[in-house]
Amino acid sequence: MKSITKLINFTKGIALESGKRLDSFDLMVETYGELNESKTNAILLCHAFSGDHHAAGKNEDQGIGWWDQIVGPSKAIDTDEYYVVCCNNIGGCSGSSGPTSINPNTKKVYGSDFPIVSVSDWVNTQKMLMDKLNIPYWHFVAGGSLGGMQALQWSIAYPDKIKKAGIFAAAAKSSTQNIAMNEVARESIRKDKNFHNGNYIEQNVIPKNGIKTARMLGHITYLSEKHMDLRFGRKFQDDASKIDKEVDFEVENYLQYKGEKFSESFDANSYIIMTKAMDGYDAAGKEDSLDEALKEIRAELLIVGFYSDWLYPPERGKEIQIAAINNNIKSSYVVLDGEHGHDSFLFHSEQYSKIIKKFIQS
Amino acid sequence: MKSITKLINFTKGIALESGKRLDSFDLMVETYGELNESKTNAILLCHAFSGDHHAAGKNEDQGIGWWDQIVGPSKAIDTDEYYVVCCNNIGGCSGSSGPTSINPNTKKVYGSDFPIVSVSDWVNTQKMLMDKLNIPYWHFVAGGSLGGMQALQWSIAYPDKIKKAGIFAAAAKSSTQNIAMNEVARESIRKDKNFHNGNYIEQNVIPKNGIKTARMLGHITYLSEKHMDLRFGRKFQDDASKIDKEVDFEVENYLQYKGEKFSESFDANSYIIMTKAMDGYDAAGKEDSLDEALKEIRAELLIVGFYSDWLYPPERGKEIQIAAINNNIKSSYVVLDGEHGHDSFLFHSEQYSKIIKKFIQS
Repeated sequence: MKSITKLINFTKGIALESGKRLDSFDLMVETYGELNESKTNAILLCHAFSGDHHAAGKNEDQGIGWWDQIVGPSKAIDTDEYYVVCCNNIGGCSGSSGPTSINPNTKKVYGSDFPIVSVSDWVNTQKMLMDKLNIPYWHFVAGGSLGGMQALQWSIAYPDKIKKAGIFAAAAKSSTQNIAMNEVARESIRKDKNFHNGNYIEQNVIPKNGIKTARMLGHITYLSEKHMDLRFGRKFQDDASKIDKEVDFEVENYLQYKGEKFSESFDANSYIIMTKAMDGYDAAGKEDSLDEALKEIRAELLIVGFYSDWLYPPERGKEIQIAAINNNIKSSYVVLDGEHGHDSFLFHSEQYSKIIKKFIQS
Repeated sequence: MKSITKLINFTKGIALESGKRLDSFDLMVETYGELNESKTNAILLCHAFSGDHHAAGKNEDQGIGWWDQIVGPSKAIDTDEYYVVCCNNIGGCSGSSGPTSINPNTKKVYGSDFPIVSVSDWVNTQKMLMDKLNIPYWHFVAGGSLGGMQALQWSIAYPDKIKKAGIFAAAAKSSTQNIAMNEVARESIRKDKNFHNGNYIEQNVIPKNGIKTARMLGHITYLSEKHMDLRFGRKFQDDASKIDKEVDFEVENYLQYKGEKFSESFDANSYIIMTKAMDGYDAAGKEDSLDEALKEIRAELLIVGFYSDWLYPPERGKEIQIAAINNNIKSSYVVLDGEHGHDSFLFHSEQYSKIIKKFIQS
């Protein structure tokens, strides 16, 4: 698989939804396969909360890409046939401009000065990337979770630049409970003694404990309750392999491990920015009408939900499809079992991959 | 309503399930109504995680009791007819021996030295209290959530000392997800810079932030998702009444408020002890068979679940009833709507109160 990773600078900057501006910004971009001569085979992948530009294949730094089970030669999203593009979103911490980047105006790390960004902002930066890559339109834009929100927003914001959208394990907006969970995560970060109002890099510290607790909570919401029960049940952790001596049960040790690992690589300000973007997105827009918001969509929609997903359960996908039907938008809505709860969108299953493949080719 | 509050000392102490001992301990006890001559009208109320001995009526220090909607003159649990007893459990922080008490052996605050206690330990201390009050048996033992676990354990541990048990919004054991959520809460407390391995009182500080985050998470699990959505939806908090400037949505502000308030009154070590007791309880015992564990029960059981409860959903009550049926134990299992999610057990509704009243009188 031909794969290219590069950092692309956008010198003209962008006006953000919040009213703030980035005078210039970088996108870390990875591409797979090749654009055909007629430029009709481009696919955009939008990553979820903790994802990045490295969607497929394996590299030394980042290991296996987050959607490698779905994206690659002869896979559901076939890199032999399609030119697949994935970029790290601004506000993140994997190469694109974000709170750990140097602010070109002050020559200092942004820290808490990096502005809040939104799903619309990401879609707009991806549109700028599309123009730079001389891609006339996306054959398919797809993502799961927060990535699914971007795919939906693409079809709303640029109806003539997208033929098909894949909206997986996602929602047109986060629920009250989703927001509440994210606020607990943010609170644990903000109250870490090393947070320093977001300017911890200046202080040479990292609010590791806060990120760890936040991720432990996040992780619970990504897993299916049933799967967790089958995997860990009420089994006790043996003393020798306890990460923390306070741990009794295996599930506690697992969360400790996952949280610890994540806290070593993810940026605290990015955690706040990404969750705020997730909470803030509402496809229904200011008019508060999803029917109205979807009126201009010309893309065909594939909406996939998973029964075991309790973060964005199947009902949330249904809301999108009902609005699509009300607007005579061509759409398919499929609910799959999915063993992995919310994370099911990341994993290959024969049915899931086939549905995606057929949809792209149809 | 005649109500007496007193601290009762148990000089002979107790051997705990963990293998540790308390050489002596206190129970803070509140009683309502009067024991009749035949001593047949005693009712024990078991409190949930953050409850205490003050179940009914209003007093200056603690305001309205936690089950005042259910307990009082002419209410579901009628204090004109019954002698109602409620004690604060050991390990808590409302008067009974706990981590904020003075260790009689060292004359210092227990702090992290207070031993882990279990649901069985609480039931055993309540049995000692019963003996001290010269009560031959309980006509009814009832509680919700962690209190319901105690009611179940009473019927298992002392089959000839209890006629009826009320097990509300409870389970025979916590699920993997329940444990996981509690571990996140504990992690946020343990990593608070003021926690000092549980010996914060010596240092004249309180791990307030950790308790606050823990409670914010707990609070989400107590509320119904639907109710939260109806009450807060995606409404924005107006700037003037923001508790924290980082807050955007009303639900965030509400959680901030609830967490802040709780963190001013609840002890961090108690938080850990109470959640560990909740996680550790498994009515099925070492044999891992609920059928086997319930074999000796002679009490009649009233099991109530609530559709909107996602912490201990109705399926968990069903597990208890199936084991009861398998043992020919007289039992009723009712699932009510309950607007308040897990907390529904605390609130009066015509149906709920009537069911409790009829059950007690039957």
